[in-house]
Amino acid sequence: MKCDLNLKEICGLFKQATKVGNCDLSDLSGIASLTEAVKGDVSFLGNPKYKKDIKNCKASLVLVPTDLEEAPQDNQIFIKLDDPSHGLAIICKFIESRIYPASEPGIHTTAFVEDSAKIETSASIGPFCYIGKDATIGVGCQILSHCHIGGGVKIGDQCKIHPGVKVLSRCEIGNRVILNAGVVIGSEGYGFEQVKGENVKTPHLGIVVVEDDVEIGANTCIDRARFEKSLIGTGTKIDNLVQIGHNVKIGKDCLIVAQVGIAGSVRMEDQVIVGGQAGFAGHLKIGKRARIAGQAGITKDVEPGAFLKGNPALPVQLAHRLSVLQRKLPDLFIRFAQIEGKK
Amino acid sequence: MKCDLNLKEICGLFKQATKVGNCDLSDLSGIASLTEAVKGDVSFLGNPKYKKDIKNCKASLVLVPTDLEEAPQDNQIFIKLDDPSHGLAIICKFIESRIYPASEPGIHTTAFVEDSAKIETSASIGPFCYIGKDATIGVGCQILSHCHIGGGVKIGDQCKIHPGVKVLSRCEIGNRVILNAGVVIGSEGYGFEQVKGENVKTPHLGIVVVEDDVEIGANTCIDRARFEKSLIGTGTKIDNLVQIGHNVKIGKDCLIVAQVGIAGSVRMEDQVIVGGQAGFAGHLKIGKRARIAGQAGITKDVEPGAFLKGNPALPVQLAHRLSVLQRKLPDLFIRFAQIEGKK
Amino acid sequence: MKCDLNLKEICGLFKQATKVGNCDLSDLSGIASLTEAVKGDVSFLGNPKYKKDIKNCKASLVLVPTDLEEAPQDNQIFIKLDDPSHGLAIICKFIESRIYPASEPGIHTTAFVEDSAKIETSASIGPFCYIGKDATIGVGCQILSHCHIGGGVKIGDQCKIHPGVKVLSRCEIGNRVILNAGVVIGSEGYGFEQVKGENVKTPHLGIVVVEDDVEIGANTCIDRARFEKSLIGTGTKIDNLVQIGHNVKIGKDCLIVAQVGIAGSVRMEDQVIVGGQAGFAGHLKIGKRARIAGQAGITKDVEPGAFLKGNPALPVQLAHRLSVLQRKLPDLFIRFAQIEGKK
Repeated sequence: MKCDLNLKEICGLFKQATKVGNCDLSDLSGIASLTEAVKGDVSFLGNPKYKKDIKNCKASLVLVPTDLEEAPQDNQIFIKLDDPSHGLAIICKFIESRIYPASEPGIHTTAFVEDSAKIETSASIGPFCYIGKDATIGVGCQILSHCHIGGGVKIGDQCKIHPGVKVLSRCEIGNRVILNAGVVIGSEGYGFEQVKGENVKTPHLGIVVVEDDVEIGANTCIDRARFEKSLIGTGTKIDNLVQIGHNVKIGKDCLIVAQVGIAGSVRMEDQVIVGGQAGFAGHLKIGKRARIAGQAGITKDVEPGAFLKGNPALPVQLAHRLSVLQRKLPDLFIRFAQIEGKK
Repeated sequence: MKCDLNLKEICGLFKQATKVGNCDLSDLSGIASLTEAVKGDVSFLGNPKYKKDIKNCKASLVLVPTDLEEAPQDNQIFIKLDDPSHGLAIICKFIESRIYPASEPGIHTTAFVEDSAKIETSASIGPFCYIGKDATIGVGCQILSHCHIGGGVKIGDQCKIHPGVKVLSRCEIGNRVILNAGVVIGSEGYGFEQVKGENVKTPHLGIVVVEDDVEIGANTCIDRARFEKSLIGTGTKIDNLVQIGHNVKIGKDCLIVAQVGIAGSVRMEDQVIVGGQAGFAGHLKIGKRARIAGQAGITKDVEPGAFLKGNPALPVQLAHRLSVLQRKLPDLFIRFAQIEGKK
Repeated sequence: MKCDLNLKEICGLFKQATKVGNCDLSDLSGIASLTEAVKGDVSFLGNPKYKKDIKNCKASLVLVPTDLEEAPQDNQIFIKLDDPSHGLAIICKFIESRIYPASEPGIHTTAFVEDSAKIETSASIGPFCYIGKDATIGVGCQILSHCHIGGGVKIGDQCKIHPGVKVLSRCEIGNRVILNAGVVIGSEGYGFEQVKGENVKTPHLGIVVVEDDVEIGANTCIDRARFEKSLIGTGTKIDNLVQIGHNVKIGKDCLIVAQVGIAGSVRMEDQVIVGGQAGFAGHLKIGKRARIAGQAGITKDVEPGAFLKGNPALPVQLAHRLSVLQRKLPDLFIRFAQIEGKK
């Protein structure tokens, strides 16, 4: 990618690190891989297997491991780091603060804030936001345009809430939470009671609680609980267009990829990883560190550490073996007919 | 869950019912199951199999069946009802009106309403709503923030339209309809004509009609018809993130769970139940009371009352039997090789 | 469908075409198929197999192929065209301009436009829209209510952007693009780095580029790239509720049906067709004109022209054959037990 970077500023991000070599440029122009970098670029050696690409790399500045023996070429600087990939992340973070500057604190002139809402002065409330009665918004929050923050909602510190997010009445959001555009927190749960052949709505009196450091992807929906709370645990990252039903409890540090559907009252323990488009029936318990392949259909409890695939879901090795054997079915049927014919 | 309830008010909800026992509390504090309830809680015996839990239940007030022989403990009230579960629903409804009070009638100062729109005075139009030309909004409707009600749209009485809903031009919504946050009604249908190798948009001139007592989940999308109307029948309940294509007609009292996809021109009869993430190819007819399992892929017409599962979808018993047999394939291949070897 | 059409206006749309017959109506009232049309309707013979329906057709005006030998009935006009279906599209387009008139140019009084944004005077900016710093909006664009157009966003000419769309910072939209309601362009990519057991967000510095003549369905989400750009090629049509991950590159003239999920860094060549709810693992290459059936799970590169189905995905003929054989498994197991018994 192309961007304007000042060489001194970039070097300044790694004050403790050893620098080797010289560069006559004052500005850098982009980030690229070792083989694609041109003069003016920043590059990095993140994986030792690419070490051979160093000697022809045209980047003006390269993040390299501390133990690298090669010397930079003419007009090239090496910054020696324990973890060059992490170094790149630091540079990216710096660029991000430039090209996506934080919104300015304060309430936009077009926003509407109920009198009883409490908003920290360092928070930013964007254009056309509605902040409901008794809502509280923490330190340093950035709430972008067109958000609905319902009555009694609590939002912690340093959250980033993208345009068009709806956090409905009484839900609670922790600190450093990222809600991407169009997210719905606290929609009514899908619960009905059959009364004389008609489906009558069950009132949903509970809330959604999203703990610290959670990220939720665009247009994802999380339903409120019937009585208590639907819960998303600390550090869990949820992708776009995911559906999470009423009373679901998700543990800490889970990864839930796009378009997953989790039916009501599922309890997922910590560090579970779920591939895209997988689905969970209601009321299941998913054990710690379980892994669920994309598109899997989970209809039974899952043991901690299990790795399941398919619908019905099977241990991944068995699922692979069955896939191989299924492709041999045409042959099996032919061979079988031959044996029957011989009898 | 915890909430503030006045004992007299709760007893007042069941004026006709027999009450047995006494309680020295004037306020109740929550709702819980028979085994989890503590002093101050309301509980209920909804299912006879939990009858044994009654004698140790610590709740201050319990909804019980009229034919229960047990007597309440000291400082405990039983309210005797034909249907204690329904009694609980009545209490929940009462609590709901407390903690989610209806929006006040009138048009919010920040809303924009075209001159030719007709809005009943008892309706509530929330912050930043746009109401288009010639739109009509019925008695007692609550339209929350950031909604777009397009030109010529008709919305019946007592509807609840959550934040960020878009009902696009000329679509029609019945009475007592609930549209959850982010719903899109009347998006352009996905129809193209190949003209000289390019996909040229087919104009979609039709509308969407949503009949009475329908509920539609958050971020669900319903496309408008090519000429006439896409239709959601009375009493049907649709969950979050569902896709309904152009010209689809859904019958009455269907249940369509989250993330289901229904392609164009499908006709679904009444009381069909569809599990989460199931998909329907276009132009199919789905018979009355059919049941479709989660993640099923339906590519052929479905008979009334059928219960299908899998992709390709099979009768559910056959699908289960095949699942069992598939797991025996590794063994079958081994046994088969033995027989071949013997010959 | 019913609508008010003037006979002279409709005939005027086909000035070059031969007209046969007479009609005493001055106004037409709707469009219907040959068999369903009543007096006053427009109908058309799009497919030769319906030719037999012409002689009893009650429509007042019928679009027919130039080589049709039949003559119109009394009080009926035939318009002879090379492609009657295309003729119908022309009439539909005409009706569309009537019942969905373009928004008027100019900026709605309730919109908020940053000073540095550049908006062509022929563009229409709807109620409650936010247009960010340095954004540019091209000639004839219609941006409907509640849209967020982020800082530095570029939107070409003649785009139609439906209510509640969010185009986030720096993303680029071509000419004649249609974004349906609730679309999110430029959400943060789902990328994390494990640092000391925690998932730390990877900054996403790139953008999304949507080329000319693309259409994107309601509530679909497209994530921004890590460094460069996620790309949707010219003429590609994407349906509702589709998820497109960071760094994905989609070719030209692809058709991607509702609820498809495409994980990060997939490269899809031109004219690929993907059925609803199909899923793609990350980093795959999908060859030109490949076809992927609905609900397929693609976990490997796909050859140009391949037609795959199922999960794991197989060539469609093999997949069908395996489906047939699987249904014979119960019988196979029985026959096999008989053979074993005989030995």
